[in-house]
Amino acid sequence: MNIKPLADRVVVKPLEAEEKTASGIIMPDTAKEKPQQGEIVAVGAGRLLENGERAAIEVAVGDRVIYSKYSGTEVKLEGTEYLILNERDILAVL
Amino acid sequence: MNIKPLADRVVVKPLEAEEKTASGIIMPDTAKEKPQQGEIVAVGAGRLLENGERAAIEVAVGDRVIYSKYSGTEVKLEGTEYLILNERDILAVL
Amino acid sequence: MNIKPLADRVVVKPLEAEEKTASGIIMPDTAKEKPQQGEIVAVGAGRLLENGERAAIEVAVGDRVIYSKYSGTEVKLEGTEYLILNERDILAVL
Amino acid sequence: MNIKPLADRVVVKPLEAEEKTASGIIMPDTAKEKPQQGEIVAVGAGRLLENGERAAIEVAVGDRVIYSKYSGTEVKLEGTEYLILNERDILAVL
Amino acid sequence: MNIKPLADRVVVKPLEAEEKTASGIIMPDTAKEKPQQGEIVAVGAGRLLENGERAAIEVAVGDRVIYSKYSGTEVKLEGTEYLILNERDILAVL
Amino acid sequence: MNIKPLADRVVVKPLEAEEKTASGIIMPDTAKEKPQQGEIVAVGAGRLLENGERAAIEVAVGDRVIYSKYSGTEVKLEGTEYLILNERDILAVL
Amino acid sequence: MNIKPLADRVVVKPLEAEEKTASGIIMPDTAKEKPQQGEIVAVGAGRLLENGERAAIEVAVGDRVIYSKYSGTEVKLEGTEYLILNERDILAVL
Repeated sequence: MNIKPLADRVVVKPLEAEEKTASGIIMPDTAKEKPQQGEIVAVGAGRLLENGERAAIEVAVGDRVIYSKYSGTEVKLEGTEYLILNERDILAVL
Repeated sequence: MNIKPLADRVVVKPLEAEEKTASGIIMPDTAKEKPQQGEIVAVGAGRLLENGERAAIEVAVGDRVIYSKYSGTEVKLEGTEYLILNERDILAVL
Repeated sequence: MNIKPLADRVVVKPLEAEEKTASGIIMPDTAKEKPQQGEIVAVGAGRLLENGERAAIEVAVGDRVIYSKYSGTEVKLEGTEYLILNERDILAVL
Repeated sequence: MNIKPLADRVVVKPLEAEEKTASGIIMPDTAKEKPQQGEIVAVGAGRLLENGERAAIEVAVGDRVIYSKYSGTEVKLEGTEYLILNERDILAVL
Repeated sequence: MNIKPLADRVVVKPLEAEEKTASGIIMPDTAKEKPQQGEIVAVGAGRLLENGERAAIEVAVGDRVIYSKYSGTEVKLEGTEYLILNERDILAVL
Repeated sequence: MNIKPLADRVVVKPLEAEEKTASGIIMPDTAKEKPQQGEIVAVGAGRLLENGERAAIEVAVGDRVIYSKYSGTEVKLEGTEYLILNERDILAVL
Repeated sequence: MNIKPLADRVVVKPLEAEEKTASGIIMPDTAKEKPQQGEIVAVGAGRLLENGERAAIEVAVGDRVIYSKYSGTEVKLEGTEYLILNERDILAVL
């Protein structure tokens, strides 16, 4: 896939319900802020620090991650829906 | 075109609907925050860091980009409409 | 357990009521902001400082901690409920 | 003209409608945030950085600029109206 | 007592009314923001500075302090009520 | 006059209406934010930078300045009214 | 008096009305933000800078100061009322 997110953004492919069950994680219905799962498909160059260097992003292409459900921007790329997220909206790698 | 955006601003020429289809990206109708596509036509010198240096902008003239739909300032230059955007409103390069 | 929180996040397993009594700490009913107890099960690499280094997290796996009740994101991992918290939501180690 | 704006401020002489047409730029009526054109007549010493140095202003006296319409402070100097703007309210140099 | 507050937090044991009178300080009834007295029973390692070092906390265990009444989080430890406060909520040492 | 403003504050003596006309500057009635003129009578040591040094104030005693009308604190000193302003509320020196 | 304010706080003894008249300063009734006079009776070690050093407070014990009327926290110490103020709430030394 040919998309390069800027700065500390990543592109995530959200996982379907059946895939989530397979991974053994179920988000509770009563969760205050429901997180969601996805797979990283592209990462940016990292946030620019005040010293002019970029901070390497902590996740890599292929990582399965949990992210905040209501964050990011949806894009449809060659028929598939993706999310462009900020690195800070990713909570954890599974 | 003769326009030089200041600091970390860029000038974008929004793409028409038919051009977007050609690129293979379609923005979903149900998107929470609808991004838009455009082509970079001018870039600023970059954001000024606290150490007095400028941070080079990550996009270049000619890049096709996705940006937040409701950001930026519209200007009409020699009959064509452009958007002056902040670099941080650009989500990704295609 | 196989989960790696990002940056200055930690994963906490909330303690049940009986466990809290055993530890000798009871949260008062009249508390303005009710804290809760839990056990750290995973820690991130730490917050990124502006100089590009990461600040080591002050808690370690196995620590019993008090945290703000209304913070964090709930996740269910292999049938057990956990909380992904920011390090700053942890008040103290017991 | 004898006015010295402080820090990262500049003094702008707004252009009349006929002048704008001559420059080939017309602001669309439907613009979300209508920018305006003007000519720089005075510039400050620049914003003070945390290291104690001043960041040189990117525009110079005589530059024709586009700026946010609703920014700045109006002053009447020897019968002519000017605007004292912050450098960050200037979008681009034409 | 076995509690270790994180970062720039301290644990305070609020003083009873009779103890306050003994110390010679009475908070006026008409005070805009009523401060309260207490004794420091535990201190954290200090706030993390951007250079990666910790700023030593200005108070020590045993200090009698005045703090903002409406700050902090109440915890009951082995039958006694304490407050976990941020160092910045402590106004003065008596 | 014996008053020493702290940090990046200055003391300004507002000019009367007739004085303003003499200087050739008239504030328009329709101004969005009406600036006012005055003379600097005292300046502070300057804002403290994070490196521990003070940033020298850009105006000096005797300077005639334009400042935001609704800023500052009024004080009456030996029968005369003055304003204690922050340096950043001063727009320009005439 | 035995009180040590923390960080960039100072302890002020507000002056009575007759004392203010003696000093030759009268606060106007129409003042937008009414300042008040007092005498410094204790000063803290100063604000902690990001480089780990403390910025010495600009006022000293015995200084007569003007401060914002609605700032600070009232305390009664051995029968006398004082105010614990932040250094930035002090406008000027007389």
